[in-house]
Amino acid sequence: MSGIKIVTIGGGSSYTPELVEGLIKRYDELPVRELWLVDIPEGEKKLQIVGALAKRMVEKAGVPMKVHLTLDRRKALAGADFVTTQMRVGLLDARIKDERIPLKYGVIGQETNGPGGLFKGLRTIPVIMDICRDMEELCPDAWLINFTNPAGMVTEAVLRYTNRKKVIGLCNVPIGMKMGVATILGVDQSRIHIDFAGLNHMVFGLGVYLDGNNVTPQIIDKLTGEQSGITMQNILDLGWDKDFIKALGILPCPYHRYYYQTRTMLEHEQEEASKNGTRAEVVKRVEAELFALYEDPDLNIKPPQLEKRGGAYYSEAACNLIYSIYNDKRDIQPVNVRNNGAIASIPDDSAVEVNCVITREGPVPLAVGDLPVPVRGLVQQIKSFERVAAEAAVTGDYHQALLAMTINPLVPSDVVAKQILDEMLEAHKEHLPQFFKPVT
Amino acid sequence: MSGIKIVTIGGGSSYTPELVEGLIKRYDELPVRELWLVDIPEGEKKLQIVGALAKRMVEKAGVPMKVHLTLDRRKALAGADFVTTQMRVGLLDARIKDERIPLKYGVIGQETNGPGGLFKGLRTIPVIMDICRDMEELCPDAWLINFTNPAGMVTEAVLRYTNRKKVIGLCNVPIGMKMGVATILGVDQSRIHIDFAGLNHMVFGLGVYLDGNNVTPQIIDKLTGEQSGITMQNILDLGWDKDFIKALGILPCPYHRYYYQTRTMLEHEQEEASKNGTRAEVVKRVEAELFALYEDPDLNIKPPQLEKRGGAYYSEAACNLIYSIYNDKRDIQPVNVRNNGAIASIPDDSAVEVNCVITREGPVPLAVGDLPVPVRGLVQQIKSFERVAAEAAVTGDYHQALLAMTINPLVPSDVVAKQILDEMLEAHKEHLPQFFKPVT
Amino acid sequence: MSGIKIVTIGGGSSYTPELVEGLIKRYDELPVRELWLVDIPEGEKKLQIVGALAKRMVEKAGVPMKVHLTLDRRKALAGADFVTTQMRVGLLDARIKDERIPLKYGVIGQETNGPGGLFKGLRTIPVIMDICRDMEELCPDAWLINFTNPAGMVTEAVLRYTNRKKVIGLCNVPIGMKMGVATILGVDQSRIHIDFAGLNHMVFGLGVYLDGNNVTPQIIDKLTGEQSGITMQNILDLGWDKDFIKALGILPCPYHRYYYQTRTMLEHEQEEASKNGTRAEVVKRVEAELFALYEDPDLNIKPPQLEKRGGAYYSEAACNLIYSIYNDKRDIQPVNVRNNGAIASIPDDSAVEVNCVITREGPVPLAVGDLPVPVRGLVQQIKSFERVAAEAAVTGDYHQALLAMTINPLVPSDVVAKQILDEMLEAHKEHLPQFFKPVT
Amino acid sequence: MSGIKIVTIGGGSSYTPELVEGLIKRYDELPVRELWLVDIPEGEKKLQIVGALAKRMVEKAGVPMKVHLTLDRRKALAGADFVTTQMRVGLLDARIKDERIPLKYGVIGQETNGPGGLFKGLRTIPVIMDICRDMEELCPDAWLINFTNPAGMVTEAVLRYTNRKKVIGLCNVPIGMKMGVATILGVDQSRIHIDFAGLNHMVFGLGVYLDGNNVTPQIIDKLTGEQSGITMQNILDLGWDKDFIKALGILPCPYHRYYYQTRTMLEHEQEEASKNGTRAEVVKRVEAELFALYEDPDLNIKPPQLEKRGGAYYSEAACNLIYSIYNDKRDIQPVNVRNNGAIASIPDDSAVEVNCVITREGPVPLAVGDLPVPVRGLVQQIKSFERVAAEAAVTGDYHQALLAMTINPLVPSDVVAKQILDEMLEAHKEHLPQFFKPVT
Repeated sequence: MSGIKIVTIGGGSSYTPELVEGLIKRYDELPVRELWLVDIPEGEKKLQIVGALAKRMVEKAGVPMKVHLTLDRRKALAGADFVTTQMRVGLLDARIKDERIPLKYGVIGQETNGPGGLFKGLRTIPVIMDICRDMEELCPDAWLINFTNPAGMVTEAVLRYTNRKKVIGLCNVPIGMKMGVATILGVDQSRIHIDFAGLNHMVFGLGVYLDGNNVTPQIIDKLTGEQSGITMQNILDLGWDKDFIKALGILPCPYHRYYYQTRTMLEHEQEEASKNGTRAEVVKRVEAELFALYEDPDLNIKPPQLEKRGGAYYSEAACNLIYSIYNDKRDIQPVNVRNNGAIASIPDDSAVEVNCVITREGPVPLAVGDLPVPVRGLVQQIKSFERVAAEAAVTGDYHQALLAMTINPLVPSDVVAKQILDEMLEAHKEHLPQFFKPVT
Repeated sequence: MSGIKIVTIGGGSSYTPELVEGLIKRYDELPVRELWLVDIPEGEKKLQIVGALAKRMVEKAGVPMKVHLTLDRRKALAGADFVTTQMRVGLLDARIKDERIPLKYGVIGQETNGPGGLFKGLRTIPVIMDICRDMEELCPDAWLINFTNPAGMVTEAVLRYTNRKKVIGLCNVPIGMKMGVATILGVDQSRIHIDFAGLNHMVFGLGVYLDGNNVTPQIIDKLTGEQSGITMQNILDLGWDKDFIKALGILPCPYHRYYYQTRTMLEHEQEEASKNGTRAEVVKRVEAELFALYEDPDLNIKPPQLEKRGGAYYSEAACNLIYSIYNDKRDIQPVNVRNNGAIASIPDDSAVEVNCVITREGPVPLAVGDLPVPVRGLVQQIKSFERVAAEAAVTGDYHQALLAMTINPLVPSDVVAKQILDEMLEAHKEHLPQFFKPVT
Repeated sequence: MSGIKIVTIGGGSSYTPELVEGLIKRYDELPVRELWLVDIPEGEKKLQIVGALAKRMVEKAGVPMKVHLTLDRRKALAGADFVTTQMRVGLLDARIKDERIPLKYGVIGQETNGPGGLFKGLRTIPVIMDICRDMEELCPDAWLINFTNPAGMVTEAVLRYTNRKKVIGLCNVPIGMKMGVATILGVDQSRIHIDFAGLNHMVFGLGVYLDGNNVTPQIIDKLTGEQSGITMQNILDLGWDKDFIKALGILPCPYHRYYYQTRTMLEHEQEEASKNGTRAEVVKRVEAELFALYEDPDLNIKPPQLEKRGGAYYSEAACNLIYSIYNDKRDIQPVNVRNNGAIASIPDDSAVEVNCVITREGPVPLAVGDLPVPVRGLVQQIKSFERVAAEAAVTGDYHQALLAMTINPLVPSDVVAKQILDEMLEAHKEHLPQFFKPVT
Repeated sequence: MSGIKIVTIGGGSSYTPELVEGLIKRYDELPVRELWLVDIPEGEKKLQIVGALAKRMVEKAGVPMKVHLTLDRRKALAGADFVTTQMRVGLLDARIKDERIPLKYGVIGQETNGPGGLFKGLRTIPVIMDICRDMEELCPDAWLINFTNPAGMVTEAVLRYTNRKKVIGLCNVPIGMKMGVATILGVDQSRIHIDFAGLNHMVFGLGVYLDGNNVTPQIIDKLTGEQSGITMQNILDLGWDKDFIKALGILPCPYHRYYYQTRTMLEHEQEEASKNGTRAEVVKRVEAELFALYEDPDLNIKPPQLEKRGGAYYSEAACNLIYSIYNDKRDIQPVNVRNNGAIASIPDDSAVEVNCVITREGPVPLAVGDLPVPVRGLVQQIKSFERVAAEAAVTGDYHQALLAMTINPLVPSDVVAKQILDEMLEAHKEHLPQFFKPVT
């Protein structure tokens, strides 16, 4: 692996500068010779803007990393060592539909583990499978590192429906939780360790440690009040009911609010949608501002404004991961991988998000035993949802899609499920060819 | 076991005549010499009425079975072979609260697997544990056959928190499903076989057979339309959405409507509560009518009106079960027992409702493998709920009770959970001594 | 399934009259219209003799069952409902080698779970796989009922390396154990029930019941002394050490002597081999006598001498099984099937020998939980052996075959394993084409 | 944990200087203020000799670690942070019997996983349980780090029969294998990583890595020939058959020779026993020489001769472990702990030897999935042996001891098992009070 080649699909994303910064910072131990930013024709303009910024950043840093911009995915993939995926099929406009259509029926859209996430998965998974097929041919030994949401469902689909074993799903939620805990305790995040286990956007901190000492109860105590202090840019920070969080006894992730505080979150989303717009609409404005910044030919560093995006630290997590694989660091990072017995009540061959030892041959999960009894049910429900959704995405089977929608914990009945499903299928028709095959 | 002794706790129940009829019918192969009907002082009047009817039934049938009426539970238990439990702690008035309080917060009460069921469990489990302690002393080899709801949670509690191994939870839902299928097909129910697996009130028919031939798809097709034709007296018979039920592909039980048709069921319950009263209020009227009938000194058979109660066929199921144990029949019946590996994603030591071979040494579950992926999540969620609720019942721990309430799939948030919990704890105070221990 | 068609591969076997007798006896409820006896050219003479006897038996019984004799397997298979396999690849001469070669190295040959069994598997499995391929094409819905040893390894191979799900391995050991217990107790075998669980020729009776009452300790007590009273015609009946069998506490099968009494059994086999010949040599003489009897044109019933063969009651077991499948009897029989969670420490997708409910859709295993701790190790060792041996049979891989030989518990070292393996490969060359592929 | 207190039971052992050296070397990051060496009256003389050497070593190193010598175990345990156990109940004379008695019956003694190991366990486990009881009272939060063999059986017994969760079994076999691999490759051992999984003295290297690159096949290739190059001082280094080791495909541990090369090892042991004496007899001479060295008042370092003992590097492993716990290093070390799902076919609550992340809260095993099929059987057999043996040690039940002896893979029959058992019980009577309770 001398002269690492990294390919970033969806390279025109606003997150790319963070990735570039991360690679520059680690250049000494992670000598990336080629970074290929790939996008589709609809994203070409953004690719040019962000690519130009990337080149300025590299130049300023003075590292011999070559940045390539291309619309030719296959050319980019040839001989890659790492392929990262951060594309958004249907762009933010599709996400707006993912959020707004369910709300019409009194249901939270939730773009990862909710009805919106189902559709993001239906749009994304076929593209990811195409990429996997290309990789088998063009770079069979490369690692696929997927940041595209719903990352759990996507990882599940790759593990279950392709031959690719070298796939890792990556999320910025765990790193965000760690930073949140560090902030609450007023310490540097390097002194915090969290025992992560669960699924993507459904991960729990089973234990929280400061300098190796268990401080879970102290942290739990601080999550109450108006705000918990642990959240994402994109999720309302409601504090947890103090008796509930004490009863739970473990650290929930920000996304758990959708399931444990459903009614409140729904009311909030409905209000936001009518006042400030849904999250996607907000993001669209933020992105426009970011790209305006990126166009400035004098800008040659990652602008600090980027950290306000919900996806902040994704690239930080990705760089850490690539670095540890390349250097066989055998340190511990939370990623999405094949369970392999780590969590007892989840099948061995399903994807979980869990602390892993990161080796050159990939992540090895730490044995968790089983999740605490009270959370097993919800975790299994999301896993059932992910599996049925992945099957629907691969097969284009209407009934599987309906089943996925109905069993989602945010959806209140089979009838409502069907209404949402039918309207969303129609709305996303263009990006769901598998559901609209020509009659033969 | 010559001269079988059966003890029925809650013997003053309106269901007792069905049990007596069942025992009379099977007398030749199930020679019950003593039937002890036990009740509490508050139930003495009903016990006298139903006990007198039982004696008239036995006399008419001309079988040498002696019926004893008593308020002395320990006297009854001494030397028993089978102990059946069908009591209702707090009587129907408590169930009215179980239904009405959650409805105030826009939540279905559901007296078995919902918030109401949590409280029924909190009231019932300590009494069942007392009975288990008495049995250890007075009839250690007897079988405890529990019909009291929530039967799954009660069986879980007995398995997990007592030394009793000889416990079976019994439900009339499977027999009702079998009868429903027989009616749909227009055949005698003896020709129908169903592969039951799941939890109590959360059981599925994984396969339906007529004369050994798989007719599952045909049955699924018939569950759509206005009414499914498979229901309980106490549950609204909504037909299933034809695409959803086809997607599901297995036979749900009537209680699944609460989870797959939540919004519709809630609206229905709210309407009923304001018009005809909740189910418990209806049952109270039905019971009054039944007891008026039972008082008729000329009545010496089970009156046909009893079959209209939601609990019909409970006693039929109980008699079948006792008969097969006593005679080591090794036939197949669906009951609630220790899982022991029968359903892969449920712990070995948890209770499941599953087809079993009934032997003299008790039920042996058939190996199911695992439940279909789409239903695993919901089943696990109810199992998490049952386990946390059982722990709350045994410990009287407020936080466990709050956790059980919050993770129940019918409850929309931690805040609402706490409101319901607090109001219900206060309302049921009298029957929840474990939560109101004197300060020491 | 009107007009059942049964195909028996290896139809020229001396056991066939027992099968014919069993089918005649059950004709009323198991109306077999066609019985096809199939054999290979080398077996044609025996086929003619045993086929003629079969026809005389059917004629005498006056049932309208047509017996066909053929060397054309594909013609026979077309449209079959049940296919039974009882062939012996390489005939008894091959078994003589299976027994004699290991003995030269001080190792018991053991024609099923020992070095001999490895080679019987290597010769048999490719033929069974051919039959499976033919069945997919010619009778995809038929049941394959395999009596050919090593039945556990063969069932494992079919489950693991073909698409056939409708396969059942059948053995006469459990029925023999039941008869042995009945004889010890002096009762009719219909009053005995045994909880069978384990692997083929490695099955235990976890509980023994007389009229539903547990009599396991009483039976255990009687297995000591000079002879245990529970054995096969082909296995020396050593009594068990009274302390060992009490410590074990469950009923071993006759084949367990090879593992728990290895040294004694080896000495016995060595003595027999030099005096009376190995078991195969004895069987060869018995078979010659049987065929002499069969040729008698006046014989039109199963001759009683057949019961002295080690394989007695195989056909009885087969007829019981076919009868219960055809009639959806849902009774309990011990057979070899996919584990599906029935025995915890064995993978779900491996074959086990376990009590099953026999339905029209096949056997459903009863959930055992796990085997007692002391026997788990030995059972796992045979399962490891079966799996590696099955892989060797399918692939013709020398190293897998060596591994299977070395891990067999009867084989004392890698060096000895290799010596035996090499000599046996050469000796059986003709029947092991997968190991002697032409160099390309 | 400021001012660490370490207690070493069996402190008079010849290994103690290695431990002292290890603690001195790590003093900066592992500030041990008190080291208590505890022994029994029979060991007092050795304790004084080795204790004096320890004090000279500490003095020379100039670290403020106080060495205490005592026969009062309870006094030593009070307030301990780490308790290490390295005692030998019955001393080397008992081990001589463990080796010589089985040999009389043509059976390898094997002092850990063979008949000898059974008796070492029977003698040791009750003492360990006493220590655990003392620890509950005197130092409940301390870690028990057990080096005493059979370490797997001892760890199993502590996990299963005491309330102690903070127990780790430690072995020098993995570190020895790592050093062997490093020597074969001619590199420093810090560049080698091995994926260890299995049981104590039954551990495999599933993968071997040099600088993160998988070199397993290359290592496998080098284990053939006259000597494998990977062994212990106490085990004959036979090279592996090149076809067998290639077929196995993973790295066996030196103790595997007893199971895969049984016949050859037995012949070797018989020859040694008659010529040079058994291993224990050799060790006795080595020990005498070591203590003669230790008495030299000018010696103030660990003498190099110690490395020739079979137990070399035990203390190195122990110091590494204590260091990583104390400093929450989260590095990876192979130790014996509760399985917790790490190896699929072993129960969650059994001890396994597996790579773990070492944290302040103890070791967390890495999820292995399952062991390769060919080795599962042997591993399970030793686990069955360990569990039955542990139960026998705790209960003093003759039948359990007989069962353990019979199911041991080195023992050829129930009859031989009983002969060896009876002779050994008598020979070790003095140290097996649980088997010789006064008749009451």
